[in-house]
Amino acid sequence: MLVSFNELKKTLYEKLLKLGANEGIAEKASQIIAENDLDGVSSHGTARFKRIADMVKCGTLIINNTATPVSSKGAMEVWDGKLGLGVINASICMDRAMALAEKNGIGCVALRNTNHWLRGASYGIQAAKKGYVALCWTNTTPNMPAWGTKEQCLGNNPLIFAAPYKDSYIVMDGALAQYSYGALGKAASEGRTLPYPGGYDSEGKLSCNPAEISKTRRVLPIGFWKGSGISLLLDIIVSGLSNGLCVPEIGKLGSKTTDERMLCQMFIAIKPENARAMDIKTEAIIEAVKHAEAVDSETKIRIPGEGSLSKREKNLRDGITVDDGIWQTIVSV
Amino acid sequence: MLVSFNELKKTLYEKLLKLGANEGIAEKASQIIAENDLDGVSSHGTARFKRIADMVKCGTLIINNTATPVSSKGAMEVWDGKLGLGVINASICMDRAMALAEKNGIGCVALRNTNHWLRGASYGIQAAKKGYVALCWTNTTPNMPAWGTKEQCLGNNPLIFAAPYKDSYIVMDGALAQYSYGALGKAASEGRTLPYPGGYDSEGKLSCNPAEISKTRRVLPIGFWKGSGISLLLDIIVSGLSNGLCVPEIGKLGSKTTDERMLCQMFIAIKPENARAMDIKTEAIIEAVKHAEAVDSETKIRIPGEGSLSKREKNLRDGITVDDGIWQTIVSV
Repeated sequence: MLVSFNELKKTLYEKLLKLGANEGIAEKASQIIAENDLDGVSSHGTARFKRIADMVKCGTLIINNTATPVSSKGAMEVWDGKLGLGVINASICMDRAMALAEKNGIGCVALRNTNHWLRGASYGIQAAKKGYVALCWTNTTPNMPAWGTKEQCLGNNPLIFAAPYKDSYIVMDGALAQYSYGALGKAASEGRTLPYPGGYDSEGKLSCNPAEISKTRRVLPIGFWKGSGISLLLDIIVSGLSNGLCVPEIGKLGSKTTDERMLCQMFIAIKPENARAMDIKTEAIIEAVKHAEAVDSETKIRIPGEGSLSKREKNLRDGITVDDGIWQTIVSV
Repeated sequence: MLVSFNELKKTLYEKLLKLGANEGIAEKASQIIAENDLDGVSSHGTARFKRIADMVKCGTLIINNTATPVSSKGAMEVWDGKLGLGVINASICMDRAMALAEKNGIGCVALRNTNHWLRGASYGIQAAKKGYVALCWTNTTPNMPAWGTKEQCLGNNPLIFAAPYKDSYIVMDGALAQYSYGALGKAASEGRTLPYPGGYDSEGKLSCNPAEISKTRRVLPIGFWKGSGISLLLDIIVSGLSNGLCVPEIGKLGSKTTDERMLCQMFIAIKPENARAMDIKTEAIIEAVKHAEAVDSETKIRIPGEGSLSKREKNLRDGITVDDGIWQTIVSV
């Protein structure tokens, strides 16, 4: 079905109130979740609302708890998410990293005991729109094999880089698995094969068959051994600095609900000394990429975040398409 | 030939003096370069010494210049490398990021006008050995196509994550191209095909043929579009914050020598509030990976940096093997 941004936000707001959220939390969370659909990322927006509701109902997500500081040293702080709503905690901690950066040039918050932040780009964009460079990442449940293992012992630990650009921003948001399980499921249900190998089949061979990969759960890290190594280090850094649960510990929690919980997240904000220099460099880089010879005449060269920005424009104008099944999971909360 | 670490370091020290370096710079640079070979990474150690000598001779590397601060705001500083020796500038700036982190919890230096740092892991290890978490990256000359382009318009922009671990460290150092040109050249000269596609052949097809890829120069970013996007953002951030040259600008400098120059680098250090927590989390993560089922009975599961640590031990005991041809390029300086 087609809904306007305001209608979608209002529906989410009311459902959050029904789940027990106070008005401030319902307002802010509905805005973040609806914006994910507005940007064309419903997989990390409305498609996950049901999981939030389920977690609230079984007590693994305490909807009115919000992150509070645990320790502080200058520009670096550790916060405890108190099992609150992931989108709220992440937004609070990125705001805090920005406040620390405003004072100290750079600021960092390591957050523990939080829940799924839905779409990592949200927090990179939050910072970049206010003029800050941002780096953030999250750990996850073990959902990706390490290089050389069959077993899922690492997280796909999405990593986000964002920078302000003129009155907009550039953002790169990517999990460290080549394809998400969501993307694999979607391709399988549509009968498509993947354009590039996304994992291993049951014979241990690299495969473009999304159903086979979903079965073995042996998804491929980006860059093979490289993405595996980056994932391991991101988990060490975020769980070590926050003293929260690391990926293997998250995996041992057991699945009270369908979603992972008690995650750690890292938020780094940097205040550019010279905003004009940032714009000039960014423009030069974009121009070089946009003017490079394309692989063929049909290929449109894209800048990270460009697709979402154009979907946002279109969806604001024409309305947001929400899958009927997903809409049902929301209205039935 | 086989040389001891001390012999290698002494030879490099003397050659640096001959190139005009003062004793302090020759001492520190010879240590860093020799340690790269000690760790088994001669491709980023002795193999690049000739390029340093060439750059000194043609005036693009001013051997006794060292980085100096340009601007400072709390925990974030911009430094100018004044075309000095890359290994010295990088080491100075990582030390400075650590000093800022000691005071502020986190510290960051964005460096411009520097030269090739040889092996990025050196500076991650430098910080991790002293108990700091480190993130650093460099931009490069345009040496990798963006996703969707044939032309090399992005850098492979190596990205490093490091963390202290007990009396040692864990370090992940990787360029954003799947294989370096060095690795492609080595495989080609040994008549090997690559285990995984490393780029495109002249027909525009993904290829495991290293000679073909070296010819087209269409190396593959890790994770296809993902590594391409990360590379673009790393360049925006490092060139924008330091107000130094971005990748396309570096590409326009023209090649006075065989090596890239006037690069930008980013150094972030974080002081863990709780070093014991870092060790506990790291141990849990390593144990989970090491105990996961391997893909087959021959595969040894590796932790990032593990290979270099064991080579260091072996090379300290048995001596370092330096390629005869490379040794000649050094002694003939």
